Amino acid sequence: MGLHDLRSGRSLRPVVTVEAQPRSPTPTLKARRLGLFSQDDAVVLMRSDCHVCRSEGLGPRSQVLLVANGREVLALLYQVSDGLLGHGEAGLSEAAWARLGIAEGAELTVRHPPPLGSLSAVRRRIYGQRLDLAALQSIVRDVAAARYTDVHLSAFLTACSALPLDLEETVGLTRAMIEVGERLTWPSPIVIDKHSVGGLPGNRTTPIVVAIVASHGLLMPKTSSRAITSPAGTADTMETLAPVDLDVAAMRRVVEREGACLVWGGSVRLSPADDILIRVERVLDIDTRGQLIASVLSKKIAAGSTHIVIDIPVGATAKVRTDEAAAELAAELTEVGRVFGVELRCVMTDGVQPVGRGIGPALEAHDVLAVLKNDAQAPQDLRRRACMLAGAALELAGRTAAGTGFALAETTLADGRAWAKFQAICEAQGGLRQPPKAALTHPVLASRAGRLTSINNRTLARLAKLAGAPDAKSAGVMLHARLGDDVAQGQPLMTVHAEAEGELAYALEFAAANPDIVQLEA
Amino acid sequence: MGLHDLRSGRSLRPVVTVEAQPRSPTPTLKARRLGLFSQDDAVVLMRSDCHVCRSEGLGPRSQVLLVANGREVLALLYQVSDGLLGHGEAGLSEAAWARLGIAEGAELTVRHPPPLGSLSAVRRRIYGQRLDLAALQSIVRDVAAARYTDVHLSAFLTACSALPLDLEETVGLTRAMIEVGERLTWPSPIVIDKHSVGGLPGNRTTPIVVAIVASHGLLMPKTSSRAITSPAGTADTMETLAPVDLDVAAMRRVVEREGACLVWGGSVRLSPADDILIRVERVLDIDTRGQLIASVLSKKIAAGSTHIVIDIPVGATAKVRTDEAAAELAAELTEVGRVFGVELRCVMTDGVQPVGRGIGPALEAHDVLAVLKNDAQAPQDLRRRACMLAGAALELAGRTAAGTGFALAETTLADGRAWAKFQAICEAQGGLRQPPKAALTHPVLASRAGRLTSINNRTLARLAKLAGAPDAKSAGVMLHARLGDDVAQGQPLMTVHAEAEGELAYALEFAAANPDIVQLEA
Repeated sequence: MGLHDLRSGRSLRPVVTVEAQPRSPTPTLKARRLGLFSQDDAVVLMRSDCHVCRSEGLGPRSQVLLVANGREVLALLYQVSDGLLGHGEAGLSEAAWARLGIAEGAELTVRHPPPLGSLSAVRRRIYGQRLDLAALQSIVRDVAAARYTDVHLSAFLTACSALPLDLEETVGLTRAMIEVGERLTWPSPIVIDKHSVGGLPGNRTTPIVVAIVASHGLLMPKTSSRAITSPAGTADTMETLAPVDLDVAAMRRVVEREGACLVWGGSVRLSPADDILIRVERVLDIDTRGQLIASVLSKKIAAGSTHIVIDIPVGATAKVRTDEAAAELAAELTEVGRVFGVELRCVMTDGVQPVGRGIGPALEAHDVLAVLKNDAQAPQDLRRRACMLAGAALELAGRTAAGTGFALAETTLADGRAWAKFQAICEAQGGLRQPPKAALTHPVLASRAGRLTSINNRTLARLAKLAGAPDAKSAGVMLHARLGDDVAQGQPLMTVHAEAEGELAYALEFAAANPDIVQLEA
Repeated sequence: MGLHDLRSGRSLRPVVTVEAQPRSPTPTLKARRLGLFSQDDAVVLMRSDCHVCRSEGLGPRSQVLLVANGREVLALLYQVSDGLLGHGEAGLSEAAWARLGIAEGAELTVRHPPPLGSLSAVRRRIYGQRLDLAALQSIVRDVAAARYTDVHLSAFLTACSALPLDLEETVGLTRAMIEVGERLTWPSPIVIDKHSVGGLPGNRTTPIVVAIVASHGLLMPKTSSRAITSPAGTADTMETLAPVDLDVAAMRRVVEREGACLVWGGSVRLSPADDILIRVERVLDIDTRGQLIASVLSKKIAAGSTHIVIDIPVGATAKVRTDEAAAELAAELTEVGRVFGVELRCVMTDGVQPVGRGIGPALEAHDVLAVLKNDAQAPQDLRRRACMLAGAALELAGRTAAGTGFALAETTLADGRAWAKFQAICEAQGGLRQPPKAALTHPVLASRAGRLTSINNRTLARLAKLAGAPDAKSAGVMLHARLGDDVAQGQPLMTVHAEAEGELAYALEFAAANPDIVQLEA
């Protein structure tokens, strides 16, 4: 405390004096590990009659700052009457315990968190003002440091969806997200990456693309995210095939050995703010253009990518619904990429129906394996799409002439090189494994004969999620019919897979109540 | 489950058959009261190895539906490893316990909550579409039933701020909010109400206005809210003078006896959705026009009011900053009021500096008592404003000719009728009491001589909140100087009052770091 200057400009002499009042040191509590699981949320339990609560003026559901072991963690406070905690104790959730890195009985200080200056930027954005780089940096820093509550995260994301981010804000958000994470560099002038903007169930081309591209000696250190609003992200699917939870050092060893990897981006903290925002986007089921671009490119650029192929599925019930929207997205992605010096090629793909047969982490992994192994029963649409994208990457990197990438990719699959490379990558990551199969399955039947004329991707994705995907790895939906197929009455259209009876029942109730998942015409 | 019609129009025969699968009844758990305080949030703790979590596919931080005693409550699930709970037990927070109304060991079912249909309306609103009455009703019903998480509440409020509610939406939101709560009727053709849109610290005219108006035989069953973003709401201040937590029956008895009351609106559930939204608005520190109007008018109309006086303080650092904004707000308030058949008079008042001396629940109560008792030291600005508003109400109700209301109100104060009426109202509510005084006080001094030329209401309100107001009743700020006053070096400009040392220190640090609370000119 002390004297401060007046900002009026008329006078620079201080006008307010607060005589220093010696502040008694905040008393400490003994930390107790509760074995309380709350996802990534730090939670602290304190007694209602705790002297720290009284002296600091802390009430239930306050945000509090936990300080111990030289570290600080923001936590949600609940109070307990007695029984659960002894006097002078504070109980910590597993997330708080891990972040503080303390031992049972360690000294813990609990106090008011410092005010969050970046919230005024969030409020300005809510009221329609644009944010400059400095404002976005202040927000993203606080997000990455887990200082935002759900209320704040949701307000920021909603404000950036209601008034979509403009190009400058998108660049700023991308830059801010890169800055708060780790950044990788690779000893190669060309580092390939690939991304799908999603919205199309079962579109699990990445493992196949990486295997093909790496077979040609190109560097492709692939980091993927978990699902945002879909039943499975590439990381969710890959996790059923090999460990994906690698740190940067382990990832580097895999890439040094095989020229490629297929790991979860979150465990290498390439864009830690994005991982926090994604959880809230998933709850809201929103995923708008500027955030999508910042999310995708911040991860790619932080991962050191120089050449990126982007798959944009277009269809009435995909994430991108029209060719115009796809062209706008492609233009903005390319523009933001240019600012950061990366070369982008966007490939618009058919997004009218799901790709492959499985929808859900393990079900999609089975499709991927079938394509890589050249199974006669492998889904040909998945194979074709993977070859289109791998071909675009081979052309973008100059490995083959324009127009010849697709054929080269097909050959690489057909002669077994891609399957050999995929196995080698999985072994380097800790071992290839067999994806699980669900204990519970139940068919959804055609109630009459007819031709399948429409599949609602959104309703189908919802069904797979209600069945437990992506958290339940083997859960989801297996499709047995495709657009244009003639089906007989009583023929199974799809099978719901689940790990828990409650989820199976929940999904089947939804299927029964939503007949627009498919349309049959006589 | 069963067969459902297709919505395509081309065929009305069902296309999907889900053969009924007998669902095993969900197993029950034994409810255990944890003594866990989490404000209004229902929280449930279950063992990670609990068979219900496994069979239902429930993970930490899921939203779950608790069913017991014929009631349903949505709750946040945390999991615990062991120690805290025995096998087959589920631990409930106080809020969950109270809402279910169960006894220790009662049978409890925990399962997935039904999908929230109204969230698609929230998403549409985020993406800029307007909401019709039906959509707003579906949202408000789910909000009032505590089905929205913080993420959803924050998204709805932010979306309605980023693209402000239009007149039709404001009317719809008002109507929806009225419908989900109780509605009062009174045996009188004229029922007076009064509201201040706030933003001006210390503007605690309501208790004085009610006392004056009721002295003239008019019916004024006043319900007030607690603070949204300010250091004190009228309910917070009144609570230091008399019980305000009255149910409808108790409120009716007070009004029958005295013609008026001064109670908290939340305990009579006049607009329960508003009470939930207000908590999140407070965290975000946003309070936009449409929401403000729906919040104010839903409560007034549900309370049965027919004639409403609205105080709109205007000033550079008040909630309404310009005369134009005040005129727009007044026009829209009047328009929405007209739709619901209520007569409104908006009174624009001077909002350049705080009213009275105290800022904070009890500190403002002391000012109110001084005015009512005709103390020589009573703040004259508070007295004048109360008389302006009471005068407007007396005129609006036809008790006195236009232009004579102010004088009639002053007389009613001066001759002791208002003080007698106020005491009678407090007695009827459960007894007049003396507001508390804070244990800890610390002055903020002028660091040099000068004339006080500016007071920042927002910074001052923030200071009072950091000192603990409104939760700490006696906390806040006492002002010792007003605009235009000449102050000497070292003279106290204000005194910070607090109940907890941590909060006092926190407020004083803020005062030292924010010298723009006041400006002094040499």
